[in-house]
Amino acid sequence: MNSREISELLHAHENVYILTHILPDGDAIGSALAWGTALRHHGKKVRIFCPGVVPRKYAFLPGVVAIENQFPANLPLGLVFVLDCGDLERLDYMKERVQSGLTIVNIDHHATNNYFGDYNIVDKSAAATGEMIYQLIQENNLLLSKEISLCLYVAIASDTGSFKYANTTPRVLKIASLLLENGVDPSLVSQKIFDEYPLSTVFLLRDTLNTLQLDQSLRIAWMSLHEDLLESYGAKEEELEGFVNYGKNINGVEVGIFFYHTRNGETKVGFRSKAVVDVGAVAASFGGGGHPRAAGCTIGGWENNVAMDKVIQAVREALLETETLNPEKCDLRR
Amino acid sequence: MNSREISELLHAHENVYILTHILPDGDAIGSALAWGTALRHHGKKVRIFCPGVVPRKYAFLPGVVAIENQFPANLPLGLVFVLDCGDLERLDYMKERVQSGLTIVNIDHHATNNYFGDYNIVDKSAAATGEMIYQLIQENNLLLSKEISLCLYVAIASDTGSFKYANTTPRVLKIASLLLENGVDPSLVSQKIFDEYPLSTVFLLRDTLNTLQLDQSLRIAWMSLHEDLLESYGAKEEELEGFVNYGKNINGVEVGIFFYHTRNGETKVGFRSKAVVDVGAVAASFGGGGHPRAAGCTIGGWENNVAMDKVIQAVREALLETETLNPEKCDLRR
Repeated sequence: MNSREISELLHAHENVYILTHILPDGDAIGSALAWGTALRHHGKKVRIFCPGVVPRKYAFLPGVVAIENQFPANLPLGLVFVLDCGDLERLDYMKERVQSGLTIVNIDHHATNNYFGDYNIVDKSAAATGEMIYQLIQENNLLLSKEISLCLYVAIASDTGSFKYANTTPRVLKIASLLLENGVDPSLVSQKIFDEYPLSTVFLLRDTLNTLQLDQSLRIAWMSLHEDLLESYGAKEEELEGFVNYGKNINGVEVGIFFYHTRNGETKVGFRSKAVVDVGAVAASFGGGGHPRAAGCTIGGWENNVAMDKVIQAVREALLETETLNPEKCDLRR
Repeated sequence: MNSREISELLHAHENVYILTHILPDGDAIGSALAWGTALRHHGKKVRIFCPGVVPRKYAFLPGVVAIENQFPANLPLGLVFVLDCGDLERLDYMKERVQSGLTIVNIDHHATNNYFGDYNIVDKSAAATGEMIYQLIQENNLLLSKEISLCLYVAIASDTGSFKYANTTPRVLKIASLLLENGVDPSLVSQKIFDEYPLSTVFLLRDTLNTLQLDQSLRIAWMSLHEDLLESYGAKEEELEGFVNYGKNINGVEVGIFFYHTRNGETKVGFRSKAVVDVGAVAASFGGGGHPRAAGCTIGGWENNVAMDKVIQAVREALLETETLNPEKCDLRR
């Protein structure tokens, strides 16, 4: 769909509803707030919805308190923008109501997007949905205020890991540059979204590092944590994000694994690999999935230690196979 | 000095010597390699010197093996570029030889630069010396190859903490964008310079987090480590970089402190503050120095525990003073 069509759709609707996904991240929140504010400036009646709690670290974003976590049944007819969702399942309990007679515009950058909208703006080359919202604002000559710039910067910085991930393109850095020209403070944003956490997170990191183990080859590193410990600190599961990297980042280590044992007897496994092992395939062999460098699965029916042993053994085999195939690629310790 | 003068200087010298500082960081190494390669393409005989060992994580940079750590007495006359040094002390044991009859061009971005060169190109608004080298290459129509772009990206990403620090400007992001267009892989660079460390670093982090303590107000967090432990892992002091932030980053904490007890009985103290406490002033009261948000000092003559108590007490007093002056600014836990 092009900007003329968007313009016509907006012209035809006074009420605009913006929705984003469960477990919202910086791209979800930032994009929704930016697009909502831009359309409000444009004269629309805008409401923003998210099926779940907005993490505290985004509390500094203008307008965040107005995000609603219930999608009422009796809303006036309007145009629905679903942001940063590969499919409608990502709307969790809001999914059914959104589908009941409302016109849906799907704006997303995920490679897995299934074009669920009545209209679909899907750009799989975009680093973040925030990058697409930036383009939409520019193409439709909407006002790019300082507040909107801040929200878009949060969206883009979040989804690129502060411009560290492979999705960091020349275009995304150029947009970030223009957003700074609009008055965004990059150090404030980074402090808020990357460099602040509850006390419980440091305790959990400490306790997790205390479980660090490596296999004999020093190519596989793993750590584990039980949900009981999380509860004892009053911590949330989202605080464990990124812990798996502490093992993966060690010189010479190819695969980092993080085991999270839940109270119902399951083990959630996070995998990261550096260069050669397809951890997506390993995770798939346990019923999970993901990408070659980042994947996950959930294992039930075994004792925690047995589950761990089986996973480590599977990673060891995947590593051996890779080394047989590409012996010259595998000396990562040089 | 302008680009015509640089051009004339380069025209007058066949031999070019590039020097950078002791304990070289990404900006020092990246800038020196980029400028050296650009001048070599331009037909100059270039040698690069650094008083100290280049950290292993920069080993992937093209040309890094040619960096020399001795500055010979009998070098042919030539033009000396000193990069990323606020003063000549930063050249450590190379300082005297560099001053003996050679023409020095000082290229630097530090606010403290004392204009030690025969020619001085000092831009205190630049985020990195690498940003200035980029400008010099452009102004002098030198070739900006893929290799040079990689070195400059490393310089800029290092000194901005992957575009997180307050020195991240629209200009620096725009330059980063152009460097990516030249073929730089941002995720490879980030992996190499930010996300890889020896096994000993994780062990040290684990042991340090095990010492984490907070004062009653939960506004001051500190951790400590003894040199004996470093030795037992065969680790280097540079691996402790950034540990102090784990305390500072906790929600509600205003000051993070890291104590490093050395074998000769001293305690090296690193301070970071979030928003209100001038840790530079606290450090200065112990004979150290730094900035309001980041500072350090070395304390001798007291038992380790006494030194820690005195420092924590001084931080507590600085915090109380700030709260009296700016009561509304101090509730960082909201």
